[in-house]
Amino acid sequence: MLRTHTTGSLRADHIGQTVTLTGWVDRRRDHGGVAFIDLRDASGIAQVVIRDEEVAHPLRSEFVLRVTGEVSRRPEGNANPNLPTGDIEVIATDVEVLNESAPLPFQVSTGLGDSETVGEDVRFKHRYLDLRRPSAASALRLRSKVYKAVRDELDKREFVEVETPTLTRSTPEGARDFVVPARLHPGSWYALPQSPQLFKQLLMVGGVEKYYQMARCYRDEDFRADRQPEFTQLDIEMSFVDQEDVIEMMESLVVAMWKTIDVDVQTPLPRITYADAMAKYGSDKPDLRFGLELVEATDYFSETTFRVFQAEYVGSVRMPGGASQPRKQLDAWQDWAKQRGARGLAYVLFNEDGTLGGPVAKNLSEKEQAGLAELTGAEPGDCVFFAAGSAKDSRALLGAARVEIGRRQGLLDPDTFAFTWVVDAPMFEPAADAVASGDVAVGAGAWTAVHHAFTGPKPEFEDTFDTDPGSALAYAYDIVCNGTELGGGSIRIHREDVQKRVFEVMGISDEVADEQFGFLLDAFKFGAPPHGGIALGMDRVLQHLTKTESIREVIAFPKTGNGFDPLTSAPAPITDAQRAEAGVDFVAEDAEA
Amino acid sequence: MLRTHTTGSLRADHIGQTVTLTGWVDRRRDHGGVAFIDLRDASGIAQVVIRDEEVAHPLRSEFVLRVTGEVSRRPEGNANPNLPTGDIEVIATDVEVLNESAPLPFQVSTGLGDSETVGEDVRFKHRYLDLRRPSAASALRLRSKVYKAVRDELDKREFVEVETPTLTRSTPEGARDFVVPARLHPGSWYALPQSPQLFKQLLMVGGVEKYYQMARCYRDEDFRADRQPEFTQLDIEMSFVDQEDVIEMMESLVVAMWKTIDVDVQTPLPRITYADAMAKYGSDKPDLRFGLELVEATDYFSETTFRVFQAEYVGSVRMPGGASQPRKQLDAWQDWAKQRGARGLAYVLFNEDGTLGGPVAKNLSEKEQAGLAELTGAEPGDCVFFAAGSAKDSRALLGAARVEIGRRQGLLDPDTFAFTWVVDAPMFEPAADAVASGDVAVGAGAWTAVHHAFTGPKPEFEDTFDTDPGSALAYAYDIVCNGTELGGGSIRIHREDVQKRVFEVMGISDEVADEQFGFLLDAFKFGAPPHGGIALGMDRVLQHLTKTESIREVIAFPKTGNGFDPLTSAPAPITDAQRAEAGVDFVAEDAEA
Repeated sequence: MLRTHTTGSLRADHIGQTVTLTGWVDRRRDHGGVAFIDLRDASGIAQVVIRDEEVAHPLRSEFVLRVTGEVSRRPEGNANPNLPTGDIEVIATDVEVLNESAPLPFQVSTGLGDSETVGEDVRFKHRYLDLRRPSAASALRLRSKVYKAVRDELDKREFVEVETPTLTRSTPEGARDFVVPARLHPGSWYALPQSPQLFKQLLMVGGVEKYYQMARCYRDEDFRADRQPEFTQLDIEMSFVDQEDVIEMMESLVVAMWKTIDVDVQTPLPRITYADAMAKYGSDKPDLRFGLELVEATDYFSETTFRVFQAEYVGSVRMPGGASQPRKQLDAWQDWAKQRGARGLAYVLFNEDGTLGGPVAKNLSEKEQAGLAELTGAEPGDCVFFAAGSAKDSRALLGAARVEIGRRQGLLDPDTFAFTWVVDAPMFEPAADAVASGDVAVGAGAWTAVHHAFTGPKPEFEDTFDTDPGSALAYAYDIVCNGTELGGGSIRIHREDVQKRVFEVMGISDEVADEQFGFLLDAFKFGAPPHGGIALGMDRVLQHLTKTESIREVIAFPKTGNGFDPLTSAPAPITDAQRAEAGVDFVAEDAEA
Repeated sequence: MLRTHTTGSLRADHIGQTVTLTGWVDRRRDHGGVAFIDLRDASGIAQVVIRDEEVAHPLRSEFVLRVTGEVSRRPEGNANPNLPTGDIEVIATDVEVLNESAPLPFQVSTGLGDSETVGEDVRFKHRYLDLRRPSAASALRLRSKVYKAVRDELDKREFVEVETPTLTRSTPEGARDFVVPARLHPGSWYALPQSPQLFKQLLMVGGVEKYYQMARCYRDEDFRADRQPEFTQLDIEMSFVDQEDVIEMMESLVVAMWKTIDVDVQTPLPRITYADAMAKYGSDKPDLRFGLELVEATDYFSETTFRVFQAEYVGSVRMPGGASQPRKQLDAWQDWAKQRGARGLAYVLFNEDGTLGGPVAKNLSEKEQAGLAELTGAEPGDCVFFAAGSAKDSRALLGAARVEIGRRQGLLDPDTFAFTWVVDAPMFEPAADAVASGDVAVGAGAWTAVHHAFTGPKPEFEDTFDTDPGSALAYAYDIVCNGTELGGGSIRIHREDVQKRVFEVMGISDEVADEQFGFLLDAFKFGAPPHGGIALGMDRVLQHLTKTESIREVIAFPKTGNGFDPLTSAPAPITDAQRAEAGVDFVAEDAEA
């Protein structure tokens, strides 16, 4: 090693020893012709004292030094109790410049803390500098620690880590595949996996029984701030299990992961059915850090003369203290609702004097007005928002309003982790609904799978899921934290006949099934065991553990605008020679077309 | 869980307990109306006794069962001491068929051992069955165990596991890239990484100091039996280190990995210089399980009248007992040599009676004949092969002959692990040589890098490597086991000026360097620390640990003929719709063109 000690490890015990340190000039102060340099390595900072002005002269921020000197006690009154090495300093006898640094595009000094003013673009273009800053460095190190916690727990449980292929075959899973032309097979291509789903099921058929992998997965989707074209999922599959086994196992991992940030997660985690989640929170990933449940008012208004409330569904959500919102703010809610495709957001103000305000109130009967506070739980000073129409759309609107209320009222405490399992989701949804919400409907049928085509029905629906697809519940479970879906899984289909019936419901013909999933159906012929599993989005998990809003912050080298890597500027234009070599031509038209 | 116990865990202690087991019918014997079933799960086998003929009737090989029954001692004389569960059997009271199995394409029963007669094609097409066989299953489990051993050791040493991107930018590293069209950037593409080389160097610039990753890497190369288009490399990089630190660290990993198969590797491992390896073994990856070093005879024949030996280099390798080879076999050696591009393989037979045989001997002077045994170390009964010509080609031929001799004489003991470091390789080789040996010469210069363009010169060549590229040695080290290169690494260049001088030697213009590596050169401007690392081919490691000849055996889902996955038949033909969606056209010409 070029050093004898790390900078952060020096203590009063080392006083009198000659040490050699390496690291970066974090900060430099000059005083009476003496240079005081905070020398930084991954372990921390030590103060280096350079008395030779000529030696000290050229040293600037982020120069890389190798310093030899004696560890001394800092002079009386100069100790720094905030620094683990604050009792000592190193009196340099030899200083070697291992590398220089040009003036920095932004400050990286630990001493100054993270500067919030540096833009993402500049930081990611110089990610190698950004990573020297405490927040970025600690996110990276935390990820490693979390992976280790997960692996230790899975190892204790005798899971086998298996790598599955990434140059594979496309299997429809709801998003667009990245494709890789197969040069040796002109006109053919590999797909990068959206998940190792089928391979892990094959491992179960192969008798592996307990599989895991930190799997790189890919989705060629349009860009969003919380999405990366490649991402990592903790992928798990187990044989001879039911839902309880998978849930118990995953809860042990949640406990282990959150322990890395000194949070004790209490298990078992709460559970909520999909139906309840939709009714109470208007979402299949409810944020349970706060209450403000939706209140259904369909029956209450069953005989109303107010045309707007003569609907399949009427519901409400309460905004505590919302009655005092200025008119402008109430108008802004209307715009907010319109942006989400609604016609507006009805509201009633419960004034402090007991009167009702807002345009809706005067349309209600006296009786309807009188019982409204009790129905909605409104206190004087509250505002209550209403939505009416289809249950699905109205609940979605109220659910979004609820989270927006939570955000505006500071209820989304980043230090609280409210987990829940969402269970008993429908097995199928109308294909038209899936398409309307931006998903890809797999198959040509009227129904498509809510989770995916390999999810089993709950045992009680095994006989009827194909005759009454709209009623069947899936044997599936999603894990949600603070309104984000961290992951999800299911007990899978392990019988060929059941799998074929599911394909039929989804309008996947035998021919298509054979072509796309023939290898799985074949495998099911030879003693496939009952099995199930789960996948957890590790980038999302890290986002929660580091309490950061942007997923980019927890990724070593993130991509930004539409998949660009700001550091390397990937993707790069292809040259004619490269094109010929790869056996590929790119369509020249605009991608938007 | 669907079971209370695993089958392999049952012992005499369990006698009297009622247990529920799940697993596969490994084997079935019938005796006196009673069915004896070997029930197998991942933990092992237990004997299940089914007295009800009607229940037992349909059960066939690889049916999946759930069996409840009482654990009993096997009747006197029926215990099986070869089976951990051999003292007991389970008297079934309830048998549930969880899944059936069609007749098998090949036998998977553990009890029968691995049948060597099943062809690779069939096994890999039904890999899910193959994985149930003991050898395949144990290879998979061993990999997981090895990964854990590596991670534990690296964790102890405070390495940080970091994931680097796989949708990235092409950087020339000697092989062809797999390309991924970037739909959102028509005409542009990502490359799948051949290694995370540049990203790990950027992590060092970013202050990570100790990085590792089990990195999936890709090379679009033509097919060979010991090569897969995607492979896993243990990728490591460290800051503030020199060669000794990386070697010491890697040796600790080798010890940990080989301990998983109960082999104690003694460290420090031997080292040999590249020059010595070429001179003594005619290879930069010498197989040190046996001796038979090459003997140079250039000086010895400096005044010879035999035209063939009037050459830049003459050398020999001894084949113990080879004098008794029949003429046909000696002719076959000529064919063997011609297949390798040589004109033949000269030989001298040292007959038991002290005479010399073979066509070469009579061309030698009496004096030359007289000293030949002493020079080459030949004993009566040996054959000595000679090669003459350029040192490079002759040594390569003799080195290959040496390994072939070892193979024919059973000296390649699979239970011996002969490691060595090969150090002090040349930094550059003539570009024409690289091309001649099938590599890609990066850059347009007369010289190309033997390792890669980011490898530093040994310190003593830092000033001269560009004025005298042919003499400069690289600060690089390869680790070799039994004639296979398991991995290699180097101390990297960390200064922009040095990196630019290397590019210049390789004929990489400033413009090209900026375009392809600008982000690395930029990073070097801002205080890049000295750093170095290594990469280890984990598939190769597993091949050695499992003592298997084919790399496919250690991969969960291997590819065969030119990158085809026999299970899923990937790659698949692309449809017009998929083509349009991906924004890509495939060149229709034959790939061979």
